[in-house]
Amino acid sequence: MDLVWFGQKEGAEELFPATVPGNIQKDYAAFKSWGDIHYADNCEKYLEIEDEVWFYHTSFDGTRATDERVFFVTKGIDYEYDIILNGCVICHHEGLYTPVEIDITDRVKDGTNTLSVKIYRHPKREGAPVSRTQADNCVKPPVGYGWDWHPRVIPSGIWNDTSIEFRKADYITRLNVTYSLAEDFSRGELFFDFTCNGAYNIRVFAPDGALVYEGAERRVSVENPLLWWCNGQGKQNLYSWEVTTASDRKQGKTGFRRVELVMESIHWAEPHGFPKSRSNPPTTLLLNGRKIFAKGSNIVSPEIFPGTSDVDTYLPLVRLAKEANMNIFRMWGGSGIQKDVFFELCDEYGIMVWQEFPLACNDYKNDPHYLEILEQEAVCIVRNLRQHCSVVIWCGGNELFNGWSKMTDQSHALRLLNKICYEQDPDTPFLSTSPLAGMGHGCYLFSFNGQEVYQMFNNSHYTAYTEFGVPSLPSVDYLKTFIPADQLFPPRQESTWKTHHGFDSWCYWDTWVCLDIIEGYFGKVSSLEDLVRYSNWLQCEGYKAIFEEARRQKPYCAMAINWCYNEPWKTAANNSLLCYPALPKPAYYAVKNSLKNVVPSARLNRFSYKSGDVFSAELWLLNDGDECIEQDEIRVSVEIGGNIVEILNWQIDFCAENTNKRGHIIQYILPRIQGVECFRLVLESKKYGVNSYDLHYVYKANAPVPKIPVLNM
Amino acid sequence: MDLVWFGQKEGAEELFPATVPGNIQKDYAAFKSWGDIHYADNCEKYLEIEDEVWFYHTSFDGTRATDERVFFVTKGIDYEYDIILNGCVICHHEGLYTPVEIDITDRVKDGTNTLSVKIYRHPKREGAPVSRTQADNCVKPPVGYGWDWHPRVIPSGIWNDTSIEFRKADYITRLNVTYSLAEDFSRGELFFDFTCNGAYNIRVFAPDGALVYEGAERRVSVENPLLWWCNGQGKQNLYSWEVTTASDRKQGKTGFRRVELVMESIHWAEPHGFPKSRSNPPTTLLLNGRKIFAKGSNIVSPEIFPGTSDVDTYLPLVRLAKEANMNIFRMWGGSGIQKDVFFELCDEYGIMVWQEFPLACNDYKNDPHYLEILEQEAVCIVRNLRQHCSVVIWCGGNELFNGWSKMTDQSHALRLLNKICYEQDPDTPFLSTSPLAGMGHGCYLFSFNGQEVYQMFNNSHYTAYTEFGVPSLPSVDYLKTFIPADQLFPPRQESTWKTHHGFDSWCYWDTWVCLDIIEGYFGKVSSLEDLVRYSNWLQCEGYKAIFEEARRQKPYCAMAINWCYNEPWKTAANNSLLCYPALPKPAYYAVKNSLKNVVPSARLNRFSYKSGDVFSAELWLLNDGDECIEQDEIRVSVEIGGNIVEILNWQIDFCAENTNKRGHIIQYILPRIQGVECFRLVLESKKYGVNSYDLHYVYKANAPVPKIPVLNM
Repeated sequence: MDLVWFGQKEGAEELFPATVPGNIQKDYAAFKSWGDIHYADNCEKYLEIEDEVWFYHTSFDGTRATDERVFFVTKGIDYEYDIILNGCVICHHEGLYTPVEIDITDRVKDGTNTLSVKIYRHPKREGAPVSRTQADNCVKPPVGYGWDWHPRVIPSGIWNDTSIEFRKADYITRLNVTYSLAEDFSRGELFFDFTCNGAYNIRVFAPDGALVYEGAERRVSVENPLLWWCNGQGKQNLYSWEVTTASDRKQGKTGFRRVELVMESIHWAEPHGFPKSRSNPPTTLLLNGRKIFAKGSNIVSPEIFPGTSDVDTYLPLVRLAKEANMNIFRMWGGSGIQKDVFFELCDEYGIMVWQEFPLACNDYKNDPHYLEILEQEAVCIVRNLRQHCSVVIWCGGNELFNGWSKMTDQSHALRLLNKICYEQDPDTPFLSTSPLAGMGHGCYLFSFNGQEVYQMFNNSHYTAYTEFGVPSLPSVDYLKTFIPADQLFPPRQESTWKTHHGFDSWCYWDTWVCLDIIEGYFGKVSSLEDLVRYSNWLQCEGYKAIFEEARRQKPYCAMAINWCYNEPWKTAANNSLLCYPALPKPAYYAVKNSLKNVVPSARLNRFSYKSGDVFSAELWLLNDGDECIEQDEIRVSVEIGGNIVEILNWQIDFCAENTNKRGHIIQYILPRIQGVECFRLVLESKKYGVNSYDLHYVYKANAPVPKIPVLNM
Repeated sequence: MDLVWFGQKEGAEELFPATVPGNIQKDYAAFKSWGDIHYADNCEKYLEIEDEVWFYHTSFDGTRATDERVFFVTKGIDYEYDIILNGCVICHHEGLYTPVEIDITDRVKDGTNTLSVKIYRHPKREGAPVSRTQADNCVKPPVGYGWDWHPRVIPSGIWNDTSIEFRKADYITRLNVTYSLAEDFSRGELFFDFTCNGAYNIRVFAPDGALVYEGAERRVSVENPLLWWCNGQGKQNLYSWEVTTASDRKQGKTGFRRVELVMESIHWAEPHGFPKSRSNPPTTLLLNGRKIFAKGSNIVSPEIFPGTSDVDTYLPLVRLAKEANMNIFRMWGGSGIQKDVFFELCDEYGIMVWQEFPLACNDYKNDPHYLEILEQEAVCIVRNLRQHCSVVIWCGGNELFNGWSKMTDQSHALRLLNKICYEQDPDTPFLSTSPLAGMGHGCYLFSFNGQEVYQMFNNSHYTAYTEFGVPSLPSVDYLKTFIPADQLFPPRQESTWKTHHGFDSWCYWDTWVCLDIIEGYFGKVSSLEDLVRYSNWLQCEGYKAIFEEARRQKPYCAMAINWCYNEPWKTAANNSLLCYPALPKPAYYAVKNSLKNVVPSARLNRFSYKSGDVFSAELWLLNDGDECIEQDEIRVSVEIGGNIVEILNWQIDFCAENTNKRGHIIQYILPRIQGVECFRLVLESKKYGVNSYDLHYVYKANAPVPKIPVLNM
């Protein structure tokens, strides 16, 4: 039943239109004409309504047929709330991920009924500073409390589908479809678990639409099922099913797949010597028995107001990930859980999901009330999402075992989540947090403590890089849409630049604009255009260097997942590959190329070179695909100042599937050319296309060009 | 009811006397007069009965009063078995830790009844090599399948209390006593959970015997309870309780304590730099809010036939641990779970227990049947032992995350154990295995790969040393009790020496006799007496060096637990501090001194010195106690060739509780004295007694004695 909702601030008379699903703060802001939240400092207006109590009101005609029952149904309301029917509280609830279904038949009268939802004040731990710490004893996503790329705007309200339903007796409810898969993949079994008082019919269709089964058995065998593969490894085979009764119909899709996290033999060889610690935990994904190098990005809530997210929000994000040759999203815990349609899209596009629970960078204590709500919410989350073949890893949350969070393996919240995942979805791996031992987070800058990404990662030895970032600014045109013209250039620390995370965001004042790093390479920057150009140059090369180096470290390393993919609002600078809402930055295209299953790659030492320097690079052919490579040739050249110098032809006879090949080291003496600030290394595979690197060139009039020849080793 | 049991080998007519509780193989061997299992190669005779099926038989008078019911009751039978009453199988069971109670009233007849127990063949995974690997899909302790200090002798049978009971209606059963403790320790609450059809009375007594409560409330408050402390930190306060009915009485003891594993701030500072991994898991025990340096030993099953263990077996072991200033046993998983009385003694003597589940050095796979039995057994283990205040850590098992085991954090068995412990005993810490990241196991030799224990441990940086060992031989007299006279000297690789783990036991041929290491220091050894003396010298100094170094590394390091404490049979050489059954080696006394709460200590660089060398040592005062030290003085001297040289008086004004104090570095030029092979460093505290080190001295006629003075820095 379509309901027309109005919002109300507690203590105020006025009603305003409310969108359901949505968020009440956004509705109120629209009603008050606060303007675009993305513009200038508009987001700060939301602080004044942060501690409000809100109401939703609607009415409906309760007249029903004699064989009908009436239900209040919601997929989730954020965060603590009452359901009030005709003036009576019929439900009090805490937690935004628990679906609630209430049979209200005996309370509903013929004709007009009133329904209200009271949304309590946001949870904030008493005594905590005004930061994410306030969210350390609730299951609300902490990101709204403020992050280095998210303004402090805390949403609440009816964020997910909510309605009044008139149901016949044969209504289908509590439907949960799971499956098992034979050890040798020769047989799948679907289990239809649901409640229905009446005759029903189940139909199952193969990925090509052919009918596989029709009948009333709740256990359906599928012989030799077509397996679901992630992007780049095969088809995203999905079996459709529907359950129908005379009055109702439910449908969905299931992908058969098996997922494990396994060790490589090289991991068991560590640690060396005595006293001896444990070997690192496994990070290699085994999908249907095949090792997969996990490459992708950390996705965050795509909207400040998650209630407004729908298929149009998620589709471009998932589609762009597939197009960028990614196969995994780490769904970062601070952002909470996305709507079902996000996971349906990931199933369909082959993007595996590492799904975290809504814990991030806090010490969630052993508080009985918190643990009770966490258990309730986590059980609902797992039972709902385990049906999606794309969900391949459960994770307790973000960076919980580090000094800024201070949780440990003994924290009850994490032991509880491990228990719930084991009970509800034992065959999907569970990680307590990220990073674990052997896994690396950071750095988040092109250079840090005197090391560029090249030195930092070439010398790293990790089983998985699950966060790493290089920031950039969006385009000049984009900046103009939210930074007032008089603040555009030069960027100042106390301005909209700071509100939008250009300054004082992480670690030190210059994040994320990174003027210091940019001017360190390029000298004083004199225009916004140059600033944007340099910033994106560094981001492109930085991300290329890290993603490709992580791939080169396979099989010791099994994952490269950058921080971050997207952003929920317009930032002035960010590690993201996409600007809000889903606008690719140049680095998106650079990463897309670096993540092709087969790509020639160069291990570089540094970014900046003077004329006369020996430019050196180690050649690689990276292969994450399931096919071996035969008879390829890689032509290596350097383009500088309009000249193209052919360096080498690397002949490759054979490179096994999912295996990299290490090649020659080239050394090239950079010539003296004036008026040039960049030179390009180009690797062109005969079969697999081009990969290139734009590197910084500094002309020094007096630099001697050494008398050593070009070496092809 | 006392039952007289007989044993029978399947397929054989003959019956033999059987001891219950006990182990059937031991009974059979006694019947066959196989002789002392500890002597020579007698243990090998047991191989011929390894795959037998066994029966126990008894009979009893089933005549009962009309208000009585009859029960078969066992605390545990090893491993898979049938209970057969009057020829009918009334129970089939797998698992030795699940108590079984069967109401047999309706099957028992007046007069004579026969009762048999069929013990199935030992579980062995098909296709596994003849080693512990055969036990990788069962819950039987793997140690009996053979270890580097345990012969291959696999026990089974009625290993724990088993009887027929005639019960009145008011019999007390399923009694489980747990407690809660207020945050500020101001109040304890005992919860009596039991079944009883009839009037009952509960009485609770304070540690001094005073009656605290009497009545029928199952929830009993104790105001300001006297807390239980581990050895060295306070009293082992235990509250006694009893539940009585007209016909029955159950009693026990409860110690109120809170235990946590916490981080030190120094741990949060790691890891440094980017990419950044997690901080190590916590290893600092917090007992009743007080940090405790855990010092103790790895205890193993004290008998090859665990069914024969009783209070007389355990008492000397626990008492000696207390006397050696230990406060913790790591109850090693490979040995399985000990009988209740062991834990009662640990409660009483203040020895904390790190209790492992019976998994060790195997890859226990995700096999549904195995997991089902593991769950059943683990739930019983935890529900039984959580009542003991001494049990402060649960652990999945031994060395499971290393290359020789190959389990990971994803292994279902370990996720299941974490879940069970969280459900049954959430406030007791759970570790998946030992070692975890930051914790060290090994080495097990005085020197390895060119490093002595001094260099190995002085340069180590671990949060806990949970296994480390130095082997020694037992005394000559002791060796003579089990090594035939003609094999005594020289020890040969193919002889009783090998059967008793003198050779080919670990890593290389020379373990655990370590002739190579001994002769490397002392030259060719010409008598058994010398071999024993040198071996024990190295063990004493090796253990002193490691235990004291681990203590010096506090607070970064929080545990020092050597491998191992005891042994279940007479070994020719072993890392143990006690010879079977509980006979202290010299190293026991050395360790006892090193583990005093307050002890002066010297950090040494190496074991062996030539005349003319500068002997150097860094002085420390180690304090694990809860009291600060004021106005102490430590006199340092060197004794060599009958001369005593006073080196230094170290004046100590103040040293805080549970804190070490670092002192001077002494440097002393060793004189030229002939006919001496040892010199002694003596540290004598005015208040806390003596600590001394016996070091190896080599006279070199031509060694120049350098002209540098003794330095007191």
